[in-house]
Amino acid sequence: MATDRENAVFEAAIKLGALYHQFVGTPISRSTAEKVEAAIESAVSLQPYVTHIEVRLDRTLMNENPFGYSELTGAMYDAVIETKFGDAVCRAQLKYENGYPMMKILD
Amino acid sequence: MATDRENAVFEAAIKLGALYHQFVGTPISRSTAEKVEAAIESAVSLQPYVTHIEVRLDRTLMNENPFGYSELTGAMYDAVIETKFGDAVCRAQLKYENGYPMMKILD
Amino acid sequence: MATDRENAVFEAAIKLGALYHQFVGTPISRSTAEKVEAAIESAVSLQPYVTHIEVRLDRTLMNENPFGYSELTGAMYDAVIETKFGDAVCRAQLKYENGYPMMKILD
Amino acid sequence: MATDRENAVFEAAIKLGALYHQFVGTPISRSTAEKVEAAIESAVSLQPYVTHIEVRLDRTLMNENPFGYSELTGAMYDAVIETKFGDAVCRAQLKYENGYPMMKILD
Repeated sequence: MATDRENAVFEAAIKLGALYHQFVGTPISRSTAEKVEAAIESAVSLQPYVTHIEVRLDRTLMNENPFGYSELTGAMYDAVIETKFGDAVCRAQLKYENGYPMMKILD
Repeated sequence: MATDRENAVFEAAIKLGALYHQFVGTPISRSTAEKVEAAIESAVSLQPYVTHIEVRLDRTLMNENPFGYSELTGAMYDAVIETKFGDAVCRAQLKYENGYPMMKILD
Repeated sequence: MATDRENAVFEAAIKLGALYHQFVGTPISRSTAEKVEAAIESAVSLQPYVTHIEVRLDRTLMNENPFGYSELTGAMYDAVIETKFGDAVCRAQLKYENGYPMMKILD
Repeated sequence: MATDRENAVFEAAIKLGALYHQFVGTPISRSTAEKVEAAIESAVSLQPYVTHIEVRLDRTLMNENPFGYSELTGAMYDAVIETKFGDAVCRAQLKYENGYPMMKILD
């Protein structure tokens, strides 16, 4: 039987895996990034056990292709999520590090 | 060599296929639907040859699962797109009809 | 600092969230389900800390739309994953229960 | 009222937009690429009016991240689709050109 802490960790990770693979590939630009961030945050905030979600997409990586826009990639993500399960909480992050969209438990 | 009209049709259809498969599965509810619509519209509006995009998601289908939210499905979509290629234009739609998310050329 | 067990749990959940949102919406039928299962398993098996992945999609839910096929939904999934982090392992599952694609820690 | 040729063009483009946005982000490597190609082809072949689909993913771009795998990107795609609507046919392609995953009507 999993502990509350394990379940809080589990629930945080589900959401990071989900938001990554749901939205990678979305056409994006510096002028639309805020709307995409808002949509991702609104989607994650609906999911079970989420107490906080903050998604920031790196505008400096939104270089224009020949048609003047970019596409959401894993390298752009900086997301922090907090979950609560029973009395336990978990804070976790998705952030690009050393060429990889690293997800890790913060505390 | 494709005509301008064929290219306008081609470009409209690309975007309908894209928006469908990019966003189906997104957690959604009546209270967040507007943000998801805005994000989809902002994404499509960046793509080449798009002159107008309007996405409406059917709130009546956003029934709550045991955790109180829903998930974006093809049945919820009503999207109309307009593209322009050279002098030709195309207006096309994605709308659920007879159990299928039908995409068609309007004019 | 997270324990090995917490990290094993974390890694298992990332993959379940990811595979769900990557593949929901894929056109599918009873005759192609095996290829989609193989692709999902091959994708997940590449991800860090995965020691086993088994994905089974429920053919009985693959009802034909007017064009003779179906679309991968959360209700079809039965996936079991095993991860290993340091000396700790985690086995977790995605399976439809009571109208929800439930993800949980098995052990 | 759209012509058969316009509808054949329309149907081809839907599938290219769809397959792009459904599968971008999938974990992939040289050893699993064949399974992903097979799954994409099987998915597209189910969709209406498709008479042929061939998807080839560029292995030379599947460079290993720190965990030893890659992720399906638009740059990897070379897909050719054929559709038939009434008496009209369309052949179209998705292929990376000049920094963009270009979709175009071949004939």
